[in-house]
Amino acid sequence: MFAPVREAPLPASGSPHDVCEFQPRGVTHAELSAMRAAFELAENGPVQDANPRVGCVILAPGGTVLAQGWHEGAGTAHAEAAALAQAHSAGISVVDATAVVTLEPCAHTGRTPSCAQSLIDAGIARVLYSVPDPTPTASGGARMLRDSGVETLGGVLSDAGAALIAPWRARTHVSSQARRNRIVVKWASTLDGKVAAQDGTSQWITGESARQHAHELRAQVDAIAVGTGTALADNPQLTARDELATRTPLRVVVGRRQLATTARLYASGASVLHVRSDDPHDVVRALDLNSAQTTLIDGGPTLVSAFIRAGLADELHVYLAPKLLGTGLPAVQDLGITTLAQAHEYSLVHCERRGNDVFLRFMRDEPQDAPSDPILNQNHNR
Amino acid sequence: MFAPVREAPLPASGSPHDVCEFQPRGVTHAELSAMRAAFELAENGPVQDANPRVGCVILAPGGTVLAQGWHEGAGTAHAEAAALAQAHSAGISVVDATAVVTLEPCAHTGRTPSCAQSLIDAGIARVLYSVPDPTPTASGGARMLRDSGVETLGGVLSDAGAALIAPWRARTHVSSQARRNRIVVKWASTLDGKVAAQDGTSQWITGESARQHAHELRAQVDAIAVGTGTALADNPQLTARDELATRTPLRVVVGRRQLATTARLYASGASVLHVRSDDPHDVVRALDLNSAQTTLIDGGPTLVSAFIRAGLADELHVYLAPKLLGTGLPAVQDLGITTLAQAHEYSLVHCERRGNDVFLRFMRDEPQDAPSDPILNQNHNR
Repeated sequence: MFAPVREAPLPASGSPHDVCEFQPRGVTHAELSAMRAAFELAENGPVQDANPRVGCVILAPGGTVLAQGWHEGAGTAHAEAAALAQAHSAGISVVDATAVVTLEPCAHTGRTPSCAQSLIDAGIARVLYSVPDPTPTASGGARMLRDSGVETLGGVLSDAGAALIAPWRARTHVSSQARRNRIVVKWASTLDGKVAAQDGTSQWITGESARQHAHELRAQVDAIAVGTGTALADNPQLTARDELATRTPLRVVVGRRQLATTARLYASGASVLHVRSDDPHDVVRALDLNSAQTTLIDGGPTLVSAFIRAGLADELHVYLAPKLLGTGLPAVQDLGITTLAQAHEYSLVHCERRGNDVFLRFMRDEPQDAPSDPILNQNHNR
Repeated sequence: MFAPVREAPLPASGSPHDVCEFQPRGVTHAELSAMRAAFELAENGPVQDANPRVGCVILAPGGTVLAQGWHEGAGTAHAEAAALAQAHSAGISVVDATAVVTLEPCAHTGRTPSCAQSLIDAGIARVLYSVPDPTPTASGGARMLRDSGVETLGGVLSDAGAALIAPWRARTHVSSQARRNRIVVKWASTLDGKVAAQDGTSQWITGESARQHAHELRAQVDAIAVGTGTALADNPQLTARDELATRTPLRVVVGRRQLATTARLYASGASVLHVRSDDPHDVVRALDLNSAQTTLIDGGPTLVSAFIRAGLADELHVYLAPKLLGTGLPAVQDLGITTLAQAHEYSLVHCERRGNDVFLRFMRDEPQDAPSDPILNQNHNR
């Protein structure tokens, strides 16, 4: 009943909205309409205020509008609270409903309760928002929602969402989060840097203890990304193995190839962010719009190498197995480097034995930040 | 005045004596003649005895015979002691002389003093012997001599030397040392397994602390081997950097290419064992004949890979620098492996931070021994 949006509508600015296409459950036509309605609702708010203008629409699972709201200005209910109140006063249940909001629901309990908590308490099952909350005090709502098992996706019509809050940001000098989301690049290789033998065999390079450790680390990030190559070849689920973990990091697939809707990635029914681009900067931007603070790049070599080459790999998590293959698939591929002085340099921060394998953690020596304002400066170097 | 022997004489058995050619100071014609004379002297000893028959000739630096001796049987002076006594009673100084012996001088103080110590005390500068002492109690003389700064080379006319002691060994059931010399393969690479960038730059992959550590380890082995490729490209001295170290491990060059006599390897004047073969088994055999217990294979990739591929790398010492190159010269090359199950497997035994680098030590999981008797079974699989 939810027709997936295969082709996301192009915004007027022409910026690469394809990075924000979600599938297969995707963003439905009803949800896109609801977001546009939310932008219109937001316009009801005061032009000059300490708070940004925000609109919210609550949809039934079938797409029917259940309630709507907007923010009237500092000291009044947030848009989400207004919409929840409208539903409540009309006696309408919002359990399992979808909240569509122009701004990431706040995580801040101030003059009003935190919207993220209100949505969780009301039984909302899914939240779509346009742009992340750029303030340090109120951001973190997406993480709160995901931690509570609410399917949460950001970046829906993000250009319009950014434009909506731009006057407020300019007026109040609210910049974006200082940093883009932190990228952790992980691989497991033989001692001579191979992730598969010549014939493609790769199970298992590392032992049980190292693999278990890697799964534990998965539960600590906000998003896990693989390339379409890995998604097609390994058909992974990208869940943390620990069944007790309630958190489900946002699952991200990167690349231009299409995945079958029968892929195990989609098996749990939760959303998958498919970034249809080979450019790691597009991935970072899509993840910023989804309020990810830490993203795990979980291979394979193509994606891993693209992030390293782009200077976006802030941290390396490397499992080394005491095996030698000589030939095979290298973990790290061409980085465009010809001489030693150009090598990507890291600092060793942790070294630990996991069974018969070694786990090494490295930080990039001179972190290159993304443009300081990933939302407004969308014409960054691609 | 010492004409180097460029072409070692082929023994009757036709076994690969080229592996025992020494250069550039080499084994001189005078020394080869002295060794043949020592075999004849040995024949003076008793056929049936608890001890093997041994002969010894002492040469002046110019090649003149100063003294000679042989072993008359258990309880009498060893051949070296007999020769030293002859020189002493004739009032002839053997300081800076060369002792040429059919068997590795013993390290065992029993009924007679240890011959290695006697030679050291007499001021002998150079010792050539044919085959290592195969008994656990008496072996170790070559190491004692080298530790005292005496230039010591084994394997001279080793087939004849082995034949000389064969009847005694058969009679007394003395087998060789149980194991061949232990091979430690060392390399320093980037995290992605490269030892040089595309343009050949490789100084320095690792930092000062790791390089210092590697030099300390050099002082603990009996022999250090490099390929002719490394010898030609890096022109190394292969000495332990620590000037206080009195030990000078035997320096070994492996490969068919000729080195210039001006190579830094030869600068100290000490002998260099040039094993003219690409087969690691020949190297192991030449080192066994030189009584090496532990040999360090100090790169480059060709030699390192040959030892791994041959299953002769008992231990790996790997320095990993937190750098990524993507492309470049891999530390480990083709091992003839096509599938993961064929990977060479090791066990991690040590993991240590050295500055910004990691030092990892591995042992081979299932050590493959060389033939149990490397002296007598010279027709081993090549």
